[in-house]
Amino acid sequence: MSYEIVSNGSSNDTTHESRADHTSVIDIYPLSCYYFGSKDAIPFKDETLSDRILRMKSHYAAHGLRTCVEAVILVELFKHPHLLLLQVRNSIFKLPGGHLRPGESDVDGLKRKLTRKLSLNEDGDGVAWEVGECLGMWWKPDFETLPFPYLPPNVKQPKECTKLYLVKLPVSRKFIVPKNMKLLAVPLCQIHDNHKTYGQIISGVPQLLSKFPFNMIDS
Amino acid sequence: MSYEIVSNGSSNDTTHESRADHTSVIDIYPLSCYYFGSKDAIPFKDETLSDRILRMKSHYAAHGLRTCVEAVILVELFKHPHLLLLQVRNSIFKLPGGHLRPGESDVDGLKRKLTRKLSLNEDGDGVAWEVGECLGMWWKPDFETLPFPYLPPNVKQPKECTKLYLVKLPVSRKFIVPKNMKLLAVPLCQIHDNHKTYGQIISGVPQLLSKFPFNMIDS
Repeated sequence: MSYEIVSNGSSNDTTHESRADHTSVIDIYPLSCYYFGSKDAIPFKDETLSDRILRMKSHYAAHGLRTCVEAVILVELFKHPHLLLLQVRNSIFKLPGGHLRPGESDVDGLKRKLTRKLSLNEDGDGVAWEVGECLGMWWKPDFETLPFPYLPPNVKQPKECTKLYLVKLPVSRKFIVPKNMKLLAVPLCQIHDNHKTYGQIISGVPQLLSKFPFNMIDS
Repeated sequence: MSYEIVSNGSSNDTTHESRADHTSVIDIYPLSCYYFGSKDAIPFKDETLSDRILRMKSHYAAHGLRTCVEAVILVELFKHPHLLLLQVRNSIFKLPGGHLRPGESDVDGLKRKLTRKLSLNEDGDGVAWEVGECLGMWWKPDFETLPFPYLPPNVKQPKECTKLYLVKLPVSRKFIVPKNMKLLAVPLCQIHDNHKTYGQIISGVPQLLSKFPFNMIDS
């Protein structure tokens, strides 16, 4: 089961608590520590697959390898870590994030994307996003291929690289999600190895997190 | 394809080269940098599955949760990273490693196991094993279940924990492998997502390594 957090303007309760960070331990706060609301829809590029490939090719010709940065954000529910995912058009699940602008740093780009998709306004409601370590990287050797967690042999010019970053939540935050997206908290035990529903990158996240001890904080 | 390195006393060539380590970059040296030989077979516990379960239960009753430590060791071949795996009885693939003794530390236990399975004598031919960071952990909720990369909800007393550690090779080393085991170098692109052949833990190793830039050093 996954738990829908935000869809068309529903909102949850908030509680607060403070606690120091531990090195290499991930503190996870209950879902109920956060406030969830919605904002105006953001436009999707509504295009055919062939138009999309054309757009990717012309972007590659102009700027080379494209980097996509995505956030791994956890909350606690029923004493088990849950991953925050965005759902678009009731189908595709996505980690919050997106493509970097040419020349933009990973951290700056990820903060910009998180603010666009999860915060009310451009300064992120005054609460900065804490972008932590890179957990993994996936490479697309071509525009239409599946991604691989390594650069395949003989691939000299990969077309896209997706980098996953751990983003640690503070004890309290407002999430404000565009009306045309749903924010979901999905338990790691449902995501693990579930390629079919979540795709290769998301279904591998529980493994990438497995080295961390979790410190689940009661509210 | 995988490349068999040692089986019944075959051996390869050696070349040497020196190079400083980079933080968070993994230096990988060509397979040809290492010497491979063989030594006397080590005894296997030849037992039925039910005997094995009985032995695991009595160990758990006496010592509680059992920890298994395993090494992720890489070499370069055809400009692609290859993972060192041991093969037993021409079937099961294993990462080099094994169970800790009660009270033994992860690092001490892994060094002991690596020496037993990959070195000539107890002091590892004078070359210490460099045990690096923990890459991932897998939990078995019960004696006969599959492992999970998290502690499943409602599991209070896991029976076994397998921890994967990155072990960085120096530019030169002798590997001396028991005659009843094969040492193989298997390309990451063959292992990735190949549960059927390598099992869940090994087939996830390419993902766990994906955050590292590899520095492949020409010999």
